[in-house]
Amino acid sequence: MPTFKLTIAYDGTKFSGWQFQPKCRTVQGAVQTAWEQITGEAVQVSATSRTDAGVHALGQVVGVNSATHLAADQLYRALNAKLPEDVVLVAIEEVAAGFHATRDAVGKRYRYRIHNERTRPLFDRNFVWHVPQSLDVDMMQRAGQALVGTHDFVSFQAAGSERESTVRTITVVQVRRCLRELSSSVLIDVEGDGFLYNMVRIIVGSLVEVGVGRREEQWLAEALAARDRRAAGKTAPPQGLCLFHVYY
Amino acid sequence: MPTFKLTIAYDGTKFSGWQFQPKCRTVQGAVQTAWEQITGEAVQVSATSRTDAGVHALGQVVGVNSATHLAADQLYRALNAKLPEDVVLVAIEEVAAGFHATRDAVGKRYRYRIHNERTRPLFDRNFVWHVPQSLDVDMMQRAGQALVGTHDFVSFQAAGSERESTVRTITVVQVRRCLRELSSSVLIDVEGDGFLYNMVRIIVGSLVEVGVGRREEQWLAEALAARDRRAAGKTAPPQGLCLFHVYY
Repeated sequence: MPTFKLTIAYDGTKFSGWQFQPKCRTVQGAVQTAWEQITGEAVQVSATSRTDAGVHALGQVVGVNSATHLAADQLYRALNAKLPEDVVLVAIEEVAAGFHATRDAVGKRYRYRIHNERTRPLFDRNFVWHVPQSLDVDMMQRAGQALVGTHDFVSFQAAGSERESTVRTITVVQVRRCLRELSSSVLIDVEGDGFLYNMVRIIVGSLVEVGVGRREEQWLAEALAARDRRAAGKTAPPQGLCLFHVYY
Repeated sequence: MPTFKLTIAYDGTKFSGWQFQPKCRTVQGAVQTAWEQITGEAVQVSATSRTDAGVHALGQVVGVNSATHLAADQLYRALNAKLPEDVVLVAIEEVAAGFHATRDAVGKRYRYRIHNERTRPLFDRNFVWHVPQSLDVDMMQRAGQALVGTHDFVSFQAAGSERESTVRTITVVQVRRCLRELSSSVLIDVEGDGFLYNMVRIIVGSLVEVGVGRREEQWLAEALAARDRRAAGKTAPPQGLCLFHVYY
């Protein structure tokens, strides 16, 4: 039975997140419905990241075990014709049996976008967090480097989550300003081997505390050392977050 | 009675264009409603460009004559609080009596955006025209230079339009490729002293004929010389078009 690796992008605005829920519009549900319409097979697809409601993806990776006789290129065209306008199949390839989208991933990159203008966002209002105060991007960049490395990130996990281990390795925290068509954004890229629940959004919320001047540059290091969710900043809203790339 | 110059941006997706129509959602209607809610005055506002349904603006300029005692900065905050999420007041200033948004404008710049990928557009699907074929941007740029200068643009005007004169001066036609977050766009900027009905969209439709290789580079010069709408290309769809800037 062939196994397929799908790379998909979606606008999460009108979805109740990735994971299938009866009676809710979910990305997993949309992919499974399209697959069934084309092949007649009811499949369970698995994704690298179970993104929350309102979170977007440019490079979500999905694994499908299927008995279909269709080739990858035929599936590419057929799926893109069936998927709703807010989901795009970017690529599909047949991979070795045993491929597992979650287990085989060695790293992920998320990108968080902040609209950093006095005026509220317009064209990208579903894809940004509006922070009207001036942000010190250089200080945010320096502050974020405290998180790079292998640490216990329990301070940056949503309270009440249960994971066997809260140790993760972050390889990149990059904060930069991006000027485009008269509008100023701050992009925060975070890359690591895995992330706890809401971890990127809590990192972003904490970096913004530093960026607006409410906290000192070394505050993120202190929050990390405290091993207490209350020591870090608030959770940034979902719509600024995008699963950017998964590494295998 | 003070006169105000408003610079507004809007996402035209859910509007039936700029111009007020009873029973339709229009940008002019939205601005007038917000103004009346704040000042109690029923005003008639005038805009530089009466954009069509689905067309966007980053820098539409609107003139308002008003008896309000509110200062520009108060109006800025109040209007942005009242306007719907798809209209943003970018700037407002009090100007000399007699200012007229349309008559006083000396030039306008439009930007047209083409999504030039095999895969259909996702995040910006309401702001681009999807052209999946490969586009020769250098050839489009060279072809477009035939339009620069003062010409009779009747070939590039929607059939059935009535204007006293169809002579206009185009100062800039710029075609370039823009790579952003894994996606390739072609941006077409057109600047001139004024535009006939659908003129930018017909120019874009004609440039794409050249870009995909269906027409030769000199075809735009021939279409211009023919003074016949049938000599030019088809009208590009509205959602790729944005009124970028108005010059005074």
